[in-house]
Amino acid sequence: MPIDKPYVLGLDVGGTNSVVGVVDARGHVLGRTSIKTKDYPVFANYVEALCAEIEKVVEPLGGMEKVRGLGGGVPNACYYTGMIDQAANLPWSHVPFAQAISDKLNIPVSITNDANAAAMGEMMYGVAKGMKNFITITLGTGVGSGIVIDGKVVYGHDGFAGELGHTTVVRGETGRLCGCGRKGCLEAYASATGVARTAKEILETTTKATILRDLKESEITSKDVYDAAMQGDEVAKEIFNYTGTILGESFANFILFSAPEAIVIFGGLSKAGELLLDPIRKAMNANVMYFWKDKVKLLLSDLKEADAAILGASALAWEL
Amino acid sequence: MPIDKPYVLGLDVGGTNSVVGVVDARGHVLGRTSIKTKDYPVFANYVEALCAEIEKVVEPLGGMEKVRGLGGGVPNACYYTGMIDQAANLPWSHVPFAQAISDKLNIPVSITNDANAAAMGEMMYGVAKGMKNFITITLGTGVGSGIVIDGKVVYGHDGFAGELGHTTVVRGETGRLCGCGRKGCLEAYASATGVARTAKEILETTTKATILRDLKESEITSKDVYDAAMQGDEVAKEIFNYTGTILGESFANFILFSAPEAIVIFGGLSKAGELLLDPIRKAMNANVMYFWKDKVKLLLSDLKEADAAILGASALAWEL
Repeated sequence: MPIDKPYVLGLDVGGTNSVVGVVDARGHVLGRTSIKTKDYPVFANYVEALCAEIEKVVEPLGGMEKVRGLGGGVPNACYYTGMIDQAANLPWSHVPFAQAISDKLNIPVSITNDANAAAMGEMMYGVAKGMKNFITITLGTGVGSGIVIDGKVVYGHDGFAGELGHTTVVRGETGRLCGCGRKGCLEAYASATGVARTAKEILETTTKATILRDLKESEITSKDVYDAAMQGDEVAKEIFNYTGTILGESFANFILFSAPEAIVIFGGLSKAGELLLDPIRKAMNANVMYFWKDKVKLLLSDLKEADAAILGASALAWEL
Repeated sequence: MPIDKPYVLGLDVGGTNSVVGVVDARGHVLGRTSIKTKDYPVFANYVEALCAEIEKVVEPLGGMEKVRGLGGGVPNACYYTGMIDQAANLPWSHVPFAQAISDKLNIPVSITNDANAAAMGEMMYGVAKGMKNFITITLGTGVGSGIVIDGKVVYGHDGFAGELGHTTVVRGETGRLCGCGRKGCLEAYASATGVARTAKEILETTTKATILRDLKESEITSKDVYDAAMQGDEVAKEIFNYTGTILGESFANFILFSAPEAIVIFGGLSKAGELLLDPIRKAMNANVMYFWKDKVKLLLSDLKEADAAILGASALAWEL
């Protein structure tokens, strides 16, 4: 890379905040700023405010001429067109996101969805460094995925490939309703909200003793389930077993597709560690086709959570 | 390509026959020969006999110096190593297939499994010509798949990617036993033998009137079901509906992975045409995530069956 442009920008856009960091080639975040996404219902004003903040944070590092490009992780972003479409949690839709920022800052801009950005981050700075074939699964409010084949994130024909959180794991009417409008998606079971739903189902349909009954049922979170499991609560452990088993069975199917070297788990729910990894590993190896038994690595992301989204998005910019 | 080497060889290895064709850049099969695979329990003798036949068929076209390389579609072949491992239907296992033929003929040799070869053939000579992202599904004795992303067949970390016939479609103990030893694989439902199993299940568990009852139940084939359906038999049509629905539901999941432009159906069962395509299309579009509804093409291969395997395998050789 040109020595006179040693930095890239990584932008992580969420419904609440838009966070941007200045990143060097080693993955150090040298500066950081943010604006409130929802304060800008008009897209042009958002771009104006964001770019003003960016120029401010870049200033002490030598200004925009030191910046090679900007990579963004944005919900429902299309990598090919740089557009955002039908993003339920953002104030604007069908906007030329990448183009607008590029025009304003005079640098190349590339965007993709946050899960694909996470995969880029793992490949450049994380546990998948040096790997050419792996899948990243993000377990947060939803379940996202980024698929890397031959060292490149898979975007597919239209730019929207890698939506493994919406693979159907329970067929038919008994499947849980997912945010996408369909039934039985992996996301409805294996996200943080899926774990909370599992807890409620077990509390409602059984009389098993559990400290989770001390909480208000409608307010139980995956964090409460985690805390209970760490205190030895059997029902809480059962909830993680159930979640991990569904994930492991799904992973066994994903492996058939791209024969990855590893599956990397990322996101809030991954903090459950072995509580979740152990049942995933068991179900994955019990269900995978014989030639992959015990061969595909199951890894936890080790990127610092505050930096991970920025690093992942910034990784896109090195390709520009 | 060099004008002095205008041909490639396409080799299709099956448990019964090994067929080889001489192919030009336009996909014309200029010569063809074969040996009986099972006549050669000793691998060295197989290589000797096959290469002798190849030299004979190439002779009138100018001899081996006109041949650029050989591509082979071989069960359980590893693209990276050129080895064959654990191929249940071949007389030998764990043999350096590509190397042995390359040493004997003095040309580069590349092999992959037959389903991946079929995908190459569709991309070079078939309905996927010009496409960069598609999936080929082979519906024969088994269910195979070849996945193309960014114009390249996906081999994955170990060379064995693209085994979609073994994705689990029915979870748990009620899933049909598959040849791979696991339960509930797509192949156990959607292959030609899967269709025959569905027929037997329906005949045994219902009393519905059908001309299939005139046949000996243990001998019913997918061809019998097809013939009955073409005569308007309702049970036979129901069998194709059932098969197509399972395929379409599976395709909806595959689309989430690689966002293909098209899914191409190939192999014996594809002759059922709309009997199968109609329920596939309905189930695929009813189950796919909203942004792909009615967007992914469902295509039937139009390669001549006698040539398709050879063309597919030969396509590998142009990359050498």
